[in-house]
Amino acid sequence: MLSHVVGAAKRPTVCFRRGLQTVTLIPGDGIGPEISVAVMKIFESAKVPIQWEERNVTAIQGPGGRWMIPPDCKESMDRTLIGLKGPLKTPIAAGHPSMNLLLRKTFDLYANVRPCVSIEGYKTPYTDVDLVTIRENTEGEYSGIEHIIVDGVVQSIKLITEDASRRIAEYAFEYARNNQRNSVTAVHKANIMRMSDGLFLRKCREVAENFKDVKFTEMYLDTVCLNMVQDPTQFDVLVMPNLYGDILSDLCAGLIGGLGVTPSGNIGANGVAIFESVHGTAPDIAGLDMANPTALLLSAVMMLRHMGMHDYGKKIETACFDTIRDKKVALKKITTLLPPIVTIVALAYRCREYIW
Amino acid sequence: MLSHVVGAAKRPTVCFRRGLQTVTLIPGDGIGPEISVAVMKIFESAKVPIQWEERNVTAIQGPGGRWMIPPDCKESMDRTLIGLKGPLKTPIAAGHPSMNLLLRKTFDLYANVRPCVSIEGYKTPYTDVDLVTIRENTEGEYSGIEHIIVDGVVQSIKLITEDASRRIAEYAFEYARNNQRNSVTAVHKANIMRMSDGLFLRKCREVAENFKDVKFTEMYLDTVCLNMVQDPTQFDVLVMPNLYGDILSDLCAGLIGGLGVTPSGNIGANGVAIFESVHGTAPDIAGLDMANPTALLLSAVMMLRHMGMHDYGKKIETACFDTIRDKKVALKKITTLLPPIVTIVALAYRCREYIW
Ligand SMILES: CC(C)[C@H](C(=O)O)[C@@H](O)C(=O)O
Ligand SMILES: CC(C)[C@H](C(=O)O)[C@@H](O)C(=O)O
Repeated sequence: MLSHVVGAAKRPTVCFRRGLQTVTLIPGDGIGPEISVAVMKIFESAKVPIQWEERNVTAIQGPGGRWMIPPDCKESMDRTLIGLKGPLKTPIAAGHPSMNLLLRKTFDLYANVRPCVSIEGYKTPYTDVDLVTIRENTEGEYSGIEHIIVDGVVQSIKLITEDASRRIAEYAFEYARNNQRNSVTAVHKANIMRMSDGLFLRKCREVAENFKDVKFTEMYLDTVCLNMVQDPTQFDVLVMPNLYGDILSDLCAGLIGGLGVTPSGNIGANGVAIFESVHGTAPDIAGLDMANPTALLLSAVMMLRHMGMHDYGKKIETACFDTIRDKKVALKKITTLLPPIVTIVALAYRCREYIW
Repeated sequence: MLSHVVGAAKRPTVCFRRGLQTVTLIPGDGIGPEISVAVMKIFESAKVPIQWEERNVTAIQGPGGRWMIPPDCKESMDRTLIGLKGPLKTPIAAGHPSMNLLLRKTFDLYANVRPCVSIEGYKTPYTDVDLVTIRENTEGEYSGIEHIIVDGVVQSIKLITEDASRRIAEYAFEYARNNQRNSVTAVHKANIMRMSDGLFLRKCREVAENFKDVKFTEMYLDTVCLNMVQDPTQFDVLVMPNLYGDILSDLCAGLIGGLGVTPSGNIGANGVAIFESVHGTAPDIAGLDMANPTALLLSAVMMLRHMGMHDYGKKIETACFDTIRDKKVALKKITTLLPPIVTIVALAYRCREYIW
């Protein structure tokens, strides 16, 4: 089923050649496999020196009923340290965990990084958006600790720790410094959650002291949302607890065209990372070769940069943006005069109107 | 100081005439007094049969150190049941409560209602926005319950109860029905906070059963934010827990021009309600006669409708929107040919470029 997706080209064979870095590929559900093939084709044509190790992810129950990801996926990630992941369907059954969250948890991927950059040729009410949301990915409202106190009274526990707050603040400032970004804004509601968001904010302030070259500001989440829709160009790097990041990253994605065009990376310690498209599995169009692979492709570009392959990253990113800008995705025939990578991206995007 | 604010007109005297309904007026801090005078002038010229009872609000400490609002304000509100309130400055001292929250709590104002409607003549990237956020105003993340578990580990408790969830859901559906609105969307993160947001959502679903004439949908908060910035016209009435409402109401205000033009009402049981502008106190322009009174004026219009004075509400609202649409706020001289209310609104808005 996968092999017919990208033009007439065969699906690239998984090969383990010497000198190639291996990446764990989790194609995911719904449109996941077909957008994964698009990305693999583009990587092949750009001669990126990596090989893919494909793994499926479905939740399994280990000893004591604990939910785990399949051992062969865990083993692969533990070895390769780098994953690229398509969308996974959200489980409906109560008690069944979100696989997205389970992956983040299993590998302690504490930083969720989502750059939002306006795409030339893809019109929205906003131009020149260029910001990055950095979301604490392990605790906060996502602690999963909830209780019924008495009948009809439920409490959810939001957990904020000094270590996780410091770690994400450090990540954000390092990120800003390494990516020639000038400012970091800490997003919080410490006027309401004085102790928990207060702790988060205090750690941000402390870390800011060590990064005098990066401007530090703090802003309430509600104020950020208001300012964001009025003028997103005022923001640069934003760092925040888990739930606020969930909200704000989606809001920002909306400004530039939605989850179909926004990349994402989940970063852990010691280089381990999973890059993923965060849109849904779109079961209604799965297998119809209509899915837009941009989010996964740009996530793969983030991955290349993370692996130090900046030139390959740049090459593919440029081809992707050129393809969108020049509306090659809507062409019925691709001219062979185009630079090869742009051609292959356009081919992978296949001569039709994508559902953006 | 107050009397010079609106044109050459004198400040209206507070009078207790028979047949007039009394409203507690809390002018607030910073620009609060001058925008309150603007509203009073407009009400006077529209001959609205109400009289104002002015009260200040600063936090005081009662027996056992408990924070309270001043007894004369409490007494007035208990009697009039209706308040109109300007901005109050946020306390900086730790342990000092937010007066906004203390007011909501003191009178159990459980529903925070914020209509967001595009204003003709005030350009933003969005047109035809016409939605209402209805926020649960008493619990959730605003419970104020926080603990240090061990050094460096803090928990904040989000409290969701069956009663408060049902109450706000019922309010939202009643609101939709009474205001000729067709749909209610419950906004939640029950995929993450399965028990707490799950309870909230369950109550919404149950209440929806009793309002078959109103369409009910449910949506994740992140998805709402994304869709909101892409096309706000798809939304109508939205109902949600406390923090989500804080965020979403500010986001929506941003779509139509900011907090300076968005009204707000806090509604309790048995008719008690406080209407307020939710922008800041703007100390930098306080006393300079530059503050924009629109948010407080439109809040006062909401108040009139709440009190059953629909005709007065309509008259003032029309005058307000006409003034903005025709840019009368920017005129240096007001012609006497204008209808009286529009003239007086324009006068209250005073011939200069307001800080919107
Ligand atoms: C799928 C869902 C559990 C997830 C989240 O809430 O974090 C998603 O919204 C995201 O932003 O990655
Ligand atoms: C002033 C502040 C405490 C308040 C809140 O967080 O609810 C404000 O943002 C609001 O929306 O009314």
